[in-house]
Amino acid sequence: MTRETAARAVLRIRIDFPDRPSLGPGKIRLLETIGEAGSISAAARAMEMSYRRAWLLVEELNGMFAEPLVATQLGGARGGGAVVTDAGRKVVAHYRELEEEAARATAPLLEGIEGISND
Amino acid sequence: MTRETAARAVLRIRIDFPDRPSLGPGKIRLLETIGEAGSISAAARAMEMSYRRAWLLVEELNGMFAEPLVATQLGGARGGGAVVTDAGRKVVAHYRELEEEAARATAPLLEGIEGISND
Repeated sequence: MTRETAARAVLRIRIDFPDRPSLGPGKIRLLETIGEAGSISAAARAMEMSYRRAWLLVEELNGMFAEPLVATQLGGARGGGAVVTDAGRKVVAHYRELEEEAARATAPLLEGIEGISND
Repeated sequence: MTRETAARAVLRIRIDFPDRPSLGPGKIRLLETIGEAGSISAAARAMEMSYRRAWLLVEELNGMFAEPLVATQLGGARGGGAVVTDAGRKVVAHYRELEEEAARATAPLLEGIEGISND
């Protein structure tokens, strides 16, 4: 990795709602990982998170919008498979678009913050 | 409060650095509160946070940039007064500017996320 491509400061976003829990990078990554892994337990393992924590986050996510974001199927140890619903995919896409737009708008400002001193 | 001015979703930002702890709404609010309250202990009380937690966050903040962001003075119970340095004020201003710019750029997108459904 050359100096020019070295890791830079990255802008993360969180959405605080007046009437429901917040939506931030952790929940969004969990939705994406469930989509890839096909179950809550596999997603929890991939994210090095306890199954219980992942399950509680899914419960929370499922109560935040008009429809559930994750649908689970019964069966097998720890409750079979899980899929991300259309609403879930929309929320992820919308969040990532917000994140990109915020990052684009703040890129010049973000560059300056690391070097702040009293000078 | 009328329907039009009801609380809306708010965008929060966090900056993840490759080489130091993250900078988010909690640390920035702590810096602002220390500036207003004049000591770490008064700021901790105002934020309903333990003195120990506030002190640890200040330690962390003071190691993140070229100069400390908070300067403390000895004396009195729990270590006398504290002031936000020039570097601290620059970091707060820079962060708030980033936040405003991100919010401005994403306002139209933010409005749409609450109503997401399968329709």
